[in-house]
Amino acid sequence: MTRKILVLPGDGIGPEITAQASRILAACQAHGLDVEVEEGLVGGSAYDEHGEPLPAVTLDKAKAADAILLGAVGGPKWDKLEDLTKRPEKGLLGLRKNLGLFGNLRPAITYPQLASASSLKSELVAGLDIMIVRELTGGIYFGQPRGIEVRNGERVGFNTYIYSESEIERIGRVAFEMAQKRGKRLCSVDKANVLEVTILWREVMERLAPEYPDVELSHMYVDNAAMQLVRAPKQFDVMVTGNMFGDILSDAAAMLTGSIGMLPSASLNESGQGMYEPCHGSAPDIAGQNVANPLATILSVAMLLRYSLGEAALAERIEAAVGKVLDDGLRTADIASEGTRTVSTSEMGDAVLRAF
Amino acid sequence: MTRKILVLPGDGIGPEITAQASRILAACQAHGLDVEVEEGLVGGSAYDEHGEPLPAVTLDKAKAADAILLGAVGGPKWDKLEDLTKRPEKGLLGLRKNLGLFGNLRPAITYPQLASASSLKSELVAGLDIMIVRELTGGIYFGQPRGIEVRNGERVGFNTYIYSESEIERIGRVAFEMAQKRGKRLCSVDKANVLEVTILWREVMERLAPEYPDVELSHMYVDNAAMQLVRAPKQFDVMVTGNMFGDILSDAAAMLTGSIGMLPSASLNESGQGMYEPCHGSAPDIAGQNVANPLATILSVAMLLRYSLGEAALAERIEAAVGKVLDDGLRTADIASEGTRTVSTSEMGDAVLRAF
Ligand SMILES: CC(C)[C@H](C(=O)O)[C@@H](O)C(=O)O
Ligand SMILES: CC(C)[C@H](C(=O)O)[C@@H](O)C(=O)O
Repeated sequence: MTRKILVLPGDGIGPEITAQASRILAACQAHGLDVEVEEGLVGGSAYDEHGEPLPAVTLDKAKAADAILLGAVGGPKWDKLEDLTKRPEKGLLGLRKNLGLFGNLRPAITYPQLASASSLKSELVAGLDIMIVRELTGGIYFGQPRGIEVRNGERVGFNTYIYSESEIERIGRVAFEMAQKRGKRLCSVDKANVLEVTILWREVMERLAPEYPDVELSHMYVDNAAMQLVRAPKQFDVMVTGNMFGDILSDAAAMLTGSIGMLPSASLNESGQGMYEPCHGSAPDIAGQNVANPLATILSVAMLLRYSLGEAALAERIEAAVGKVLDDGLRTADIASEGTRTVSTSEMGDAVLRAF
Repeated sequence: MTRKILVLPGDGIGPEITAQASRILAACQAHGLDVEVEEGLVGGSAYDEHGEPLPAVTLDKAKAADAILLGAVGGPKWDKLEDLTKRPEKGLLGLRKNLGLFGNLRPAITYPQLASASSLKSELVAGLDIMIVRELTGGIYFGQPRGIEVRNGERVGFNTYIYSESEIERIGRVAFEMAQKRGKRLCSVDKANVLEVTILWREVMERLAPEYPDVELSHMYVDNAAMQLVRAPKQFDVMVTGNMFGDILSDAAAMLTGSIGMLPSASLNESGQGMYEPCHGSAPDIAGQNVANPLATILSVAMLLRYSLGEAALAERIEAAVGKVLDDGLRTADIASEGTRTVSTSEMGDAVLRAF
């Protein structure tokens, strides 16, 4: 059966980097992968065309797809939009919510070829391999009530951080299973000394633990987790946390590898349908210059093949090709260092294709 | 007029480190500082004695004091208390709230003698000097409604992230004024692309900006701020943010200096009354061993003298004494490195007193 992949380039450097990823997808097709690839608009570019960051036509295509490859959304052009519901980010959040993509997998890996690019001392990050499991369709991102209104004669802004037991259990299971497949250590991050919602979070994680006796569960307050990531990141195997804390910690973790331009991510729903995107943003400052790093997006294709299409062998081929290119000393500007050769976005795509 | 200082040792290493700080206070008295020093119980030790983490007698003393010096609260002994209102942390939160200590100043400074202790490459942290201004009596820490209750047949946990314009304006002014006294750059951290409460936050900061024309205001999303702190912390001068984001970012920033055992903090109310405490926690694992670093608490005394008592000269003497001791190569275990002499908590206190 032909499976469907929807490519959503988005804004900023999105089109350039997804273009390179699409070439890899085409190469996979040439090697027998039976997929149909479509494109669509999301984010600011969709707003410009349709007046909506997530037009109905895009959402319909997304629902029909087995997997989605997203570039990135957002940019200063749309930052001043008064109506928050029209902002590019709402396109992304709408996709996550409408497709039920609650399980966000954010690996923080240091590529051996790039350890020296980290702002941390090399010995602290060499060999780093953390998987952050972030809940993606609940928490304060979507909690009601929310808004800005006048109370006692002045405006107040408010949002609601809320999780139900079943939401926590669902993401907890993803994290425990991930830990079983990896180093068997799971650290759940909360702020249970202050926030009731995370007391419930901790309680549910504790309740699940006996079902995964081979996994060692620990808990850490979010402020301490931020410190420990900076101090000694290799202490972590799998981390699980809510939407907001996950946003912050996964970005910090990604940055400390020194290779944020290299990190893919997956967002999965209960039926294995997934959206794949680089961890980095739309980098409007360098958009259109053919200098952005396409590797995180290319590696997102590998994740897509592995998690949504069950094509582990092809995924490994892509990952090996990326490794080969790094071994050969090719680097885009963001990861360049002495003794390496700086190449453009499209030259990097060429090189990966050759190595594939 | 004799001013009153209340010392609250708290839990874990709290008593050991405040004991050394109290010796410095006594030395200041010997040099003519006219203060009356009292002690009180807070946190787990107060719970053990009075069944409350913030007994009325402590709160009364705190209200009557011009300034409070706090050690640290919390520990595993009280982590399992079912009733969240009895946890040690609630003593701390109660003090902050009851005294209206909304303005939390958290410096992240790299001591030149300790730059190599950072997990970041030395050149990225040498000379680092950030001041994080954290709102401390509002936001999700205190927002209502909050709790755990059954809805649609299952439990949900919820908290409310809420700020009024006047709360934002008040902390904004503290931050702008701080920036005026320093490098004149203020970075306000929010998540205005997702959370309404922080859209209001950003708006109020923008509204205040013209009143401080010499300060350059910028905005950053919290996930990006976490990344930028890891990538290039020296880009920041003053940062201002809400209670929860401030908790996370100030701890990350403190850790990346490599000198978290050295960092004091101040929490001020509108009348200049303040509570002073080290940035680090109660470290129950090393409590009672006379190995904890008392310098952050001693430096908190310096902040206390400067901000609540207007005794800048004495504050500088303390800071100079600490610098001297570091120059002499004395280190507690947490900051020890090759070629330095490891000393105990009380030996470090002795040394600072000698240098004072
Ligand atoms: C763009 C933004 C809404 C988004 C988020 O906060 O989830 C991004 O930061 C991310 O982490 O994917
Ligand atoms: C102990 C805890 C309640 C407290 C907080 O979260 O504010 C601490 O982490 C701090 O930063 O002072």
